Amino acid sequence: MKRTKRERQTALKKSIVENPFVTDEELSAEFDVSVQTIRLDRMELAIPELRERIKHVAVKTFEDEVKSLPIDEVIGEIIDIELDEKAISIFDVKPEHVFQRNQIARGHHLFAQANSLAVAVMNEELALTVKSELQFLRPVKAGQRIVAKAVVSERQPEKNRAFVKVVSTVDQVTVFIGTFEMYRMTEQSEGEVI
Amino acid sequence: MKRTKRERQTALKKSIVENPFVTDEELSAEFDVSVQTIRLDRMELAIPELRERIKHVAVKTFEDEVKSLPIDEVIGEIIDIELDEKAISIFDVKPEHVFQRNQIARGHHLFAQANSLAVAVMNEELALTVKSELQFLRPVKAGQRIVAKAVVSERQPEKNRAFVKVVSTVDQVTVFIGTFEMYRMTEQSEGEVI
Repeated sequence: MKRTKRERQTALKKSIVENPFVTDEELSAEFDVSVQTIRLDRMELAIPELRERIKHVAVKTFEDEVKSLPIDEVIGEIIDIELDEKAISIFDVKPEHVFQRNQIARGHHLFAQANSLAVAVMNEELALTVKSELQFLRPVKAGQRIVAKAVVSERQPEKNRAFVKVVSTVDQVTVFIGTFEMYRMTEQSEGEVI
Repeated sequence: MKRTKRERQTALKKSIVENPFVTDEELSAEFDVSVQTIRLDRMELAIPELRERIKHVAVKTFEDEVKSLPIDEVIGEIIDIELDEKAISIFDVKPEHVFQRNQIARGHHLFAQANSLAVAVMNEELALTVKSELQFLRPVKAGQRIVAKAVVSERQPEKNRAFVKVVSTVDQVTVFIGTFEMYRMTEQSEGEVI
């Protein structure tokens, strides 16, 4: 049953409030209308495009949510987190993060953001990275904001393992993909580490 | 033809001066004598064991040798480098490099040392990391010194690619292995990056 325009716009507003990182394409699929319709809806509702929303997203602290490390040890700022499921962080690339010569962000900063997000999303006291596969797809420059989304893709509690995939984007273009095999264990049952 | 003990000790001394990071096991293979013989030779020559040599190795600067980035952008200190072949760097793990909670060195520091060494070993003006596979094998603690050895394992100049393997050790125990697929190009012929 097709919703009325008003119903759709009310639901759309709610969706964007709940997840400011949702794209027009995702909304188009969710509401089964064209991307153009979503854009018009946003204009009528005075909701800025994703790029603008990302720039001004309010950073709340997730101190109480994150278990595996103190929040100030996360590289970047956590915007949303659901333990053992998914998490989002943003990282603003500043001049000190780039190679002097070509102004391209150094790989270890992209890795650090993604890896610390993979640690943070673990619902455990102890989480360590065992293996990782990285793809650096596009250069990132100073002044850009990297949005990293982590999704826990697989859990193997009997082996104390979990797998996390992190996709990092700048203006919705994917710049980095990392998969992380995590070792995880609650402090109580901690044995030999790795 | 077997060397005399004096000949062997002279050659041994030379080998260790040329490469202070050589292990007793490697020397044993090189001189076709037992590891125990190497140890006795070292004692007679008053050459400290590898662990001690690594601690006190003189750091010279390789400013002129490294082409792909300014030397101060290398994470860790380069101890030896042969462009397009191999390189060695050391990184001293300090309290600011570890997780507060368990004192284990954070993965991005091991990655940063290895990755910047992979960049530095490239004999090009421009070198960027395209892909990487990492294995974190053992936790490293504050106060330990990580020795990273990079070897260029494969060159594909027609594709502007090279592959570098980095093995990082603490007291000769491997703690990290990283393989890096590098994009490389001289500035003159630089086109679209990636």
